[in-house]
Amino acid sequence: MTVTSVRTELYSQVQHFYAHQMQALDGGRFEDYAATFTEDGTFQHSPGAEPAVGRAGIVAELVRFHERFADDPVQRRHWFNHIALEEQADGSIRSTVYALVVTVRPGGVPVIAPSCVVHDVLEASGDGVLLRSRLVTHDQLS
Amino acid sequence: MTVTSVRTELYSQVQHFYAHQMQALDGGRFEDYAATFTEDGTFQHSPGAEPAVGRAGIVAELVRFHERFADDPVQRRHWFNHIALEEQADGSIRSTVYALVVTVRPGGVPVIAPSCVVHDVLEASGDGVLLRSRLVTHDQLS
Amino acid sequence: MTVTSVRTELYSQVQHFYAHQMQALDGGRFEDYAATFTEDGTFQHSPGAEPAVGRAGIVAELVRFHERFADDPVQRRHWFNHIALEEQADGSIRSTVYALVVTVRPGGVPVIAPSCVVHDVLEASGDGVLLRSRLVTHDQLS
Repeated sequence: MTVTSVRTELYSQVQHFYAHQMQALDGGRFEDYAATFTEDGTFQHSPGAEPAVGRAGIVAELVRFHERFADDPVQRRHWFNHIALEEQADGSIRSTVYALVVTVRPGGVPVIAPSCVVHDVLEASGDGVLLRSRLVTHDQLS
Repeated sequence: MTVTSVRTELYSQVQHFYAHQMQALDGGRFEDYAATFTEDGTFQHSPGAEPAVGRAGIVAELVRFHERFADDPVQRRHWFNHIALEEQADGSIRSTVYALVVTVRPGGVPVIAPSCVVHDVLEASGDGVLLRSRLVTHDQLS
Repeated sequence: MTVTSVRTELYSQVQHFYAHQMQALDGGRFEDYAATFTEDGTFQHSPGAEPAVGRAGIVAELVRFHERFADDPVQRRHWFNHIALEEQADGSIRSTVYALVVTVRPGGVPVIAPSCVVHDVLEASGDGVLLRSRLVTHDQLS
C-alpha cells in the first residue's frame, strides 16, 4: 500500500478542525458548523438526500432536521476515526473517515448507531481548513 | 467558526499524552495517572463529586473508587475523541474531549457507557504536558 | 509518568498509517493490508492463534478467515484509540493501541465487539512506516 505522504502539519490541522467542527454540530451551533464549509460548500448527510448547498442552505437543513427533536432532550455525539487523507491533483484533499453516532437521553444509556463513512473534500490554506463537500454513507444501507 | 490556531507540535503532544495517561488509568497504574497532574492538580470525575486535590489525593480517590471492584475482574477502557484545544490568556490550554467508557468482563461483550465530556486545563512546557484540572460531565445527567 | 518523548512527525505519521491500513483491511484489500508489514512481518490476530508470517502468509490467513463470510454481506470497521508509542533501543517503535470492532449488516444496527488491545512493533524510515509484528489481545479473554 502506498500511503500518500501528507504533511504532518496538515494531518494535525485536519484532526483539530474535525474536533471543533463536530463539537459545534453536536452543541447545536449550526452557524459555526456551516462556517466550516466553503461559501458554496455542499453537505449531503445520506446518499439519498438532496445536498444542502452554501452556508445558509446548510443551516436551514440542520434546523429542519432538528425540528423533530424540539421536545426531545437528546444529546448526539459524532465520533470520528481513521482519518485517511489523499492530496488531489487540483490541490484539494480527499478525506475518508469512519463515523459513529452516539445518542444519549437523560437517564439513558448511549445508543451507538449508525456506523457511517464520511467522504470529505477539504481545502487547506495558510488560514486553515474549509470543507468543500461532505457526503456521508451509511453501512447498514450498503 | 474560528478554530483557534494551535501549534501542530502541541496537538500531537496532547494526543500522545492522553494515550499514555488513559492506558495508565485503565491498567490500574494510579500513581502514573496521578503523576500526569500538576502537584496541586484537581480531578473531579463527575459534577456532583468532591474534587480530589493533589497527586496523593487523586491516588486515594482512585483506590477508594476501585475497592468495590476488588473481586470483580472488570477491564475498563476510556476512549477519547475530538480533542478540541483553546489557548487561554494565562498560557494554559483548555481541552474539551468526548469520552466513552468501555467495560468488559471475562467471557462477556463490551458495555459502552456512559458517554461523557472531559473538560481539562493543561499546562504545556518544553518538558511535556501536565493536567491542572479535569472535570468530567456525563451526557445522561444533562 | 514519564511519557516517552516521540517526535511529532512520527506520531502523526503513525496515526495516518493506521487510518490507511485499517481502511484497507475493512475494505477487503488484503494485499494492501499485507503490504503494510515488513517482508517477514508477523500477524497474530489472537494470542491462541498461530501467527501468519510474511506478506503472502498474511494474505492467505485473511482469505481463510473471511471464507466463512462469503455469503454474508457484513461490513466490519476496526476502530483504534489511544495510540501510545515507545521508542525501543533497537530503533523500532512499540505501539500499544485500543481497538473495537464494529460490525454492521444490511438493515441492521452496529454490534461493537470485541474490545481488544493491539500490540505492534513498527519500523519508521524516511520512506514511511512498516509493521514488523502485530499481536492482538482480547479483553474478554483476560
